[in-house]
Amino acid sequence: MYRLYQHPGSGNCYKIQLLLELLGLPYETVNVNILAGESRTPAFLAHNPVGKVPVLQIGSDDFLPESNAALWYLAEGSRFLPADRRGRAEVVRWLSFEQYSHEPNVATARFWIHFLGNPPQYAERLQEKQEAGRHALRIMDDHLARADYFVGGGYSIVDIALYAYTHVADEADIELAPYPAILAWLARVGGEPGHVAMEY
Amino acid sequence: MYRLYQHPGSGNCYKIQLLLELLGLPYETVNVNILAGESRTPAFLAHNPVGKVPVLQIGSDDFLPESNAALWYLAEGSRFLPADRRGRAEVVRWLSFEQYSHEPNVATARFWIHFLGNPPQYAERLQEKQEAGRHALRIMDDHLARADYFVGGGYSIVDIALYAYTHVADEADIELAPYPAILAWLARVGGEPGHVAMEY
Repeated sequence: MYRLYQHPGSGNCYKIQLLLELLGLPYETVNVNILAGESRTPAFLAHNPVGKVPVLQIGSDDFLPESNAALWYLAEGSRFLPADRRGRAEVVRWLSFEQYSHEPNVATARFWIHFLGNPPQYAERLQEKQEAGRHALRIMDDHLARADYFVGGGYSIVDIALYAYTHVADEADIELAPYPAILAWLARVGGEPGHVAMEY
Repeated sequence: MYRLYQHPGSGNCYKIQLLLELLGLPYETVNVNILAGESRTPAFLAHNPVGKVPVLQIGSDDFLPESNAALWYLAEGSRFLPADRRGRAEVVRWLSFEQYSHEPNVATARFWIHFLGNPPQYAERLQEKQEAGRHALRIMDDHLARADYFVGGGYSIVDIALYAYTHVADEADIELAPYPAILAWLARVGGEPGHVAMEY
């Protein structure tokens, strides 16, 4: 059975949980209190030297860090990952966008506000993160104005990866009203059979 | 024939050029002067809305942004990308690490110093980037102390992706002497048949 090391409310952890639910795979969760340093203990660093959740345990001594790597692993052979070369490259393209242009901005702004209580020393950088996050959302909205999902062929792990923090952008004090195509896409993703909400 | 839109000296562009050379594939390059805003023109944004090089043109009207997506596309079916599910997930894991923990630190520090002439307004953040970059290098060194390459099975696109900015870390004022396993790995990668140096 899969074991997901997670922190409740982490969008990166939720990505994996959502796909496990969509695939109907059994799993158990282990909460790691990142705010109390539990992801920096020697035991945890042995599973993920980066010291972050999520980590997906896929075997008795086999631990897979990085949320998008777990998505790829779980989705292999399913309808959530294209089988063709061009489609897979497009998945890597958008997962790169998510890791470089979206998550470091939207998720970090949300973390500072929602988990750390918006401490004043981050005020200037918070604005920069929100601005960069809105730029990423603009790119997403332009894309979704012409397509129902990010990659041709339908709902994929790219949608899961980008949904995780986009659907809680309000917790980063980023309004989604200017992005109508994103709002329609969020409704499509949320209406997918087997969809579960993030618990926290 | 592949067409690579690039900026000379960009490690992200070099990743693709290196793999094209290793695979012996014909290609042509188009220089895009990012310092003169040429990656932000409407024509270029139509190929990559993120406004960055590289973009790999793979068909008459088919443009693939994101360096690691191009690596994946080109490596499919070759010895540079594992065929098995676990190996591929490990590739996604390390490409995520490269995009999130390595490139934004080492490459950004290098960009500020090497391309922008180390302007004083970045001084405080430069130190943060260098510190975070050294932390990423420490994780890499620990891994490479136990393995010749990042993913089991040998030299892969992960090595190419991480080599691109690691081998010029000195241009980010980051010394590599504290990382002997990285130095040995750089020599292995540089000695690969067909290896070419970054031109700039």
